[in-house]
Parts: sequence; structure tokens; C-alpha cells
Amino acid sequence: MNRVDRIKRTSRDIRNTNRFAVLRGIYSAASPTRQDLASMTGLSFATVSNIVTELLRVGVLVEASREDSGGGRPRARLKFDPARGLLLGVDVAETYVRVDVFDLALSHLARYDHDITDRKSDPKYVIGEIVRCVQEALDDYREGRVLGVGVSMPGQVEPDAGVSVFAPNWGWSDEPVQAMLRQELNVPIHLDNPLKATTVAELWFGHGRETGDLITVNLGTGVGAGIAIDGQLIRGVTNNAGEWGHSTLIMDGRPCRCGRRGCVEAYIGVPGLMALFGEQYPGHAYLAGDTQLEFMQAIKHGMTNGEAEAQWLVGQFARYLGAALANLVNIINPRRIVLSSWAAMELGDWLLVPTRERLISESISGSAAAVDVVLTSVRGNPVALGMATLALENFLEQLGLPGRASRPVRAMSA
Amino acid sequence: MNRVDRIKRTSRDIRNTNRFAVLRGIYSAASPTRQDLASMTGLSFATVSNIVTELLRVGVLVEASREDSGGGRPRARLKFDPARGLLLGVDVAETYVRVDVFDLALSHLARYDHDITDRKSDPKYVIGEIVRCVQEALDDYREGRVLGVGVSMPGQVEPDAGVSVFAPNWGWSDEPVQAMLRQELNVPIHLDNPLKATTVAELWFGHGRETGDLITVNLGTGVGAGIAIDGQLIRGVTNNAGEWGHSTLIMDGRPCRCGRRGCVEAYIGVPGLMALFGEQYPGHAYLAGDTQLEFMQAIKHGMTNGEAEAQWLVGQFARYLGAALANLVNIINPRRIVLSSWAAMELGDWLLVPTRERLISESISGSAAAVDVVLTSVRGNPVALGMATLALENFLEQLGLPGRASRPVRAMSA
Repeated sequence: MNRVDRIKRTSRDIRNTNRFAVLRGIYSAASPTRQDLASMTGLSFATVSNIVTELLRVGVLVEASREDSGGGRPRARLKFDPARGLLLGVDVAETYVRVDVFDLALSHLARYDHDITDRKSDPKYVIGEIVRCVQEALDDYREGRVLGVGVSMPGQVEPDAGVSVFAPNWGWSDEPVQAMLRQELNVPIHLDNPLKATTVAELWFGHGRETGDLITVNLGTGVGAGIAIDGQLIRGVTNNAGEWGHSTLIMDGRPCRCGRRGCVEAYIGVPGLMALFGEQYPGHAYLAGDTQLEFMQAIKHGMTNGEAEAQWLVGQFARYLGAALANLVNIINPRRIVLSSWAAMELGDWLLVPTRERLISESISGSAAAVDVVLTSVRGNPVALGMATLALENFLEQLGLPGRASRPVRAMSA
Repeated sequence: MNRVDRIKRTSRDIRNTNRFAVLRGIYSAASPTRQDLASMTGLSFATVSNIVTELLRVGVLVEASREDSGGGRPRARLKFDPARGLLLGVDVAETYVRVDVFDLALSHLARYDHDITDRKSDPKYVIGEIVRCVQEALDDYREGRVLGVGVSMPGQVEPDAGVSVFAPNWGWSDEPVQAMLRQELNVPIHLDNPLKATTVAELWFGHGRETGDLITVNLGTGVGAGIAIDGQLIRGVTNNAGEWGHSTLIMDGRPCRCGRRGCVEAYIGVPGLMALFGEQYPGHAYLAGDTQLEFMQAIKHGMTNGEAEAQWLVGQFARYLGAALANLVNIINPRRIVLSSWAAMELGDWLLVPTRERLISESISGSAAAVDVVLTSVRGNPVALGMATLALENFLEQLGLPGRASRPVRAMSA
């Protein structure tokens, strides 16, 4: 008898998807009623009521007020219980640790920043710096009230194993980050990477409110994408989906820091853009600054002044970016591409408009007609916000409410 | 109040997924019992029983035999009712129409072939040729017994609207193919394209029995992919996902028949391979044949004889194909890549082994370690088989059993 895939989707998953819709409805509206939620989500009133009852029972929601519905039963307005606890989102990059503190409604309360020396990449040192920064937040906000901490690590991460599989810039491989953090911090910890975090933030608090078929694109030193289909984060079989930055744009082209050639990142990562610019305009003043941020700000300044060299660079950026995004559009056929992170935000419409044009001309007609390209509408740090959201999903799971709206990593099936 | 995505997943979708697993279990085993199906699918015995009861009620299944379970209640062996009716799968290409006839167990009964003149691409002519070929099968098998006909059209197709949106080689745009066919044929008709059909065939009858995270790759005149994640066919928002053949492998590279440059298809579509070979070995005997098939057979023959020119071409094919597949692996992170269609099957392991090597070296480590590259295990024409399967899904839907295991195209949400 042949093997048949075991079916992972159970009735739990449905309740889960529906609960995600209800939670998102409460996040997006000001104290909605059950009736409001039914109309916002398209779920039946009975389904919404069951989910709300469950969330009230575990103390995640409270009834904010009741109003007379004109002869019928009073309608309760619902909100998150601000006293229930806190969530921390942690964005760990090669050069910094940032911790954001949120209440249960995912309103931002505080931010802690901590520089880390990028010459020191020893796991014990890096973990120590994360612990210091998180502990500072815990001390200020009373550890016991923290319901969960979501930590984004640069590179490839296995959330279920709590392992940072591969962080190329640090030379890390299979570091048990979650276990190391839990030795020092007495709080539930969930691990993931920035691509997944940004996409979850966009799904819950950004363009995901309008479509569940979107791709978020991180543009900065590194380059990557996060894919959502029908409201579900696509993780891939080992949580590595979205490594579009290391897909090939020009076979046998420019060397990439990953060791291969012709990757998307080699052209549109900020170091790639700087190299491109340096070849065209050697020794130009835009390159005088020390950092990638200074370079992008010089380009922005140049665009404001209508300088030809800045326009040349933005033209090249859009040309490569548009073609690389068209690959995602041709393969996935999404409704929306969302540009995120600092390199995109510095340039705004200067980048967006020519990129969209190039993307449309490089995509097959049926997919080009369906897609739009926009800037993120998530405020604040989407990585920290997304990680706090994943920590909330984990917390709901621990309450016995399977909370993952995002697809879990599954065991090897082969 | 902000808009929140309407949730499309209902309890119907779950029953649907579970029914798909049970049906697939019955296809893959010889007359299994309910107990066998529960153990194969990982579903509870109660869930399996409910689904089997439903399928018995609508006459899709029958009890083949009963055996004593040793003191307990007798165990019924289940099979498809061969008398219930027939399904037709139709593969329409630029130069031919092929109709395959299947019984309800999707066993192959007969095949009808029909050449169409590739200089005549007028919709009325092409539809007329499809009707003639299907009618021949209907005449032989008594129209009334045909439960559904699945028709694969080349190009972009909108199944729900029954429209062939774009068939570049024919100059078609928005042709109402389903309506035109239904005027002539008194049977339920479902429309789709070869990428979707091949993937459904692989999910039900090929490597999908072992993993639901696979990508099928069609290699021939045209080139494309079909993506399945967690057992679900990914259609994209306008049914155009998988147009990987028109993603860019070398920006500003070789002209492609789609009018753009540097597409994957421009390098590894058979005409691209022939052009590449012609540049390296002008006037070579391999190019003496009239057709693409003759060229690939000459290459195959050359490989058998250890000829350097054939080895050169296969090396180039693998180099481009491996890099292009690595883009899919880096973006989607699948468990398995399945090479399908004639150009792959001609070369078999000669192509597979170096392609796999190149793919691994061009993929990020975590995804490279998880993926395998194999040849299809579907016998016969996967396009016709997949279309017959989609016709079965449609038939189950019409019985009131929502049958789609594949994701339906949804309305514009923006």
C-alpha cells in the first residue's frame, strides 16, 4: 500500500483561521461589536460569538461598554484587556539589538536600542547582548507581565527547533539560540527571521487588511521577500521560503556576498548599489560617507536637488528591482507587492514609480494586470512588531487556542 | 472601520481536504477498508467513515467485498463504481488535440488524437477541431455516461470565467472557450491550462503521494512550473502562478518568443536549446531534422554514442536549468522538484544528475538540503490525466460535495 501524505489540516486549523480574522478585526477597528466583527470578516454571527466567548474566557478580550441596540439585546463593544500583559518584539541585526514593548492590543509602549560590535560575532557575546537588552525591558516592565518574546535573528532560522541554522555574516551554523536565551530569561521565547516577521506585520497591520495575497520585499544591506497566499505566511518546508535576494537575476553576473554570482542582492542590496555607483562615478561625493545609510541619504538629497548622478542611480535601482520583482510576480501571481525597510522608504515614489513601470513590462499580461506595487503602511519597526505578533500567536497556542495564522514548519515528509 | 479580508475558508474546505485525502487513498490502494484509509491518511476512523458514507450515497464508491475481521464487524473493501460514468481529459496544444477517456477510478480506457494545422489559429477552427475529437469519444462511449470533460488550453486561462485569456502563439485574447464548447457538446466542461493540469496529476497520482510540497516543471517548446504547497495547487490571484518560463534568468539576455529578453524559456525551451546549439555547431547534423522532437532525439542518440557535441548541449541545458530551478527553490523552498514532459523524459538521468548538482550549488543551504529533483512518476499524458481529475473535482462539487483540492481563483479583492 502506497504512502499517503498525512493530513495536517484539522478543524483546529479552521477555528484558528477564523480566530485570526476576528483578532485582526479587533485590531483594525475601535472597539467593535460582535455584529461589526461578523460584517467585517464575513463569518457567521454564531462563529464570531464562539470565538469571542473563548477569547473572553482566557482573558485576552474584555467588554469595553454595552450599548442599547434599540429594543434588542445590548451590544457589547470589545477590546483587548490592557492589564492582561505585554509582548516584546526583538529585532537582532549584525550591528544592533532593538527591543520594542507592546501591550496586548499591540500598541507600542517603549523601545530599547543596543549597539553590538559587528567584529564580535561569537554566539555567546551576541546572545549576551540580546539578553542585556531584553532584561532591561523586563526590569522596567516587570518580568511576570510579559506573555512572550519574539526574537528575529538574521539568516536562516528553524522556529520549531529554536535554532539559528545559518547566519552567513556571523559564520553561525546550528546555534541553539532559543535554549541559550531561555537559560537567561524566564519568559516564553519564539524565534524567527526578519522576512517572516515583516510579512506577519504586514498581514496583521498593513496591506494585509486589504488582501491576503501579498509579497513583502525587504530592501537594505540584505534583500529578501516574504510571501503570503490567501492570508497565510508561506514558510517553505524548512522556513526558508522568500530568499529571493539570492535568486539569480543575471546568471554568471556580479559576485554576491553569499559566494554565488548574479544574485538579486548583488545588484539591489545597498552595497551592490554603492559598487554600481562607484563604477559609474568613481570618487563621487555621494560615496564620501562611512555608512550605507549616509550613501542612501546622499542619493535622496541629490534627488531633491535634481542631480543627474542621483537620478542615474535611482534609474538603475528601479531597472534591476523591477525585473527582479517581475520574477516574483510571474512565479507567484500576487495581488500586491509591498516595499519595506529603510532603503525603500528613503526614496519613496522616486523609486516606486519607475519600479512599477519596469515590473509591469517584465511580467506576463494576466499577472501584470492584477498586481500593484506600494510602500508598506506598517508604522514603526515591522520586524519587532511582527515578532511581537508571532509571540502573541504562541501565547494563544499555550492557552490551548491554536493561534498560528502562519503555516508551521512541518517535519520532513520524505 | 477598516476593511478586513473576508475569510474564504469554511468548514466545507476542511471536509474537502479530508475527502481529497480519502479519494487519493482509494486511488493509491487496491480496495482499501475504512481502517486502511484511516491509517493511510492519519484521519480519525469516524471522519473517514463519514466521508465514505457520503461517497457511497452519491454512488461514487461501492463496497467491493466484505471480509470477516475476526469476531468484530465485517470490514468492507471499497472501490470506485466503474459503472458510474466516465471522465474525459483533453490536452489542446498548438498542433494537436488529444482526448483521453477514463473511468471513475481514473483508469485509462482510450485515446483519440487529432492534428490541427498550426497555421490556422482562428478560434472557430480550433474549437471546431476540439469538438470533433471530443465528439468522437462521446459517440464511442455514449454521451450520457460522461460525467465531465476537462480541457487544457495553451496559455493563460481563467477557469471560473471559462475563458482563454491569452494564447500568445495563436494571438487569442479573452476567447469564451467554455461557452463555445458548451454550445456544441452536451457535457459539463472545465477549463484550465497545462501547468495546473500537470500539477494536479502529480499531486493525485505521482510524487504527491509522498509530499504535498512539490513543484512540477514542464520542459518542451514552452517552459513553465506548477506549484503545490501543503497539497494545495497554488493558482495565484488570476490563475497565472507558475509562469516561471517567463521569469528572467539573464537580464537583457536572449530574446524570448514572449517579446521580452532573458527569460528562462529563451534558454531551455527546445527552440532556445536549438539556437544555442546552432551557434556553437553551425550546420551540425543534429539540426538536420524538421522538428524539435527530432533534435532532442538526435541529442539522445548522441549521448548514447558518447558524442562530445551532445554532451556539450546537455551540459548547457543542465547549467541553465539548474540555475533557473534554484530560483524556484530559493523563493518557494519545496520538498521536491518534478521534471515532466517530453524534453526531460528524452534525456532522463543524463539531464537530471548535472541539473541537480547545479541546483544545489545555486540554492541557499537550508533549502538545498531539503529538496530533491526527480522525473515524474505519472504514466501517460499528465495534462489529460490532470484535466480528467479536475473534471472529477467539478463533478463532486455538482453533487453537493465541494470537491476542489486545488485553490479556486478568487474574485478581485482590491
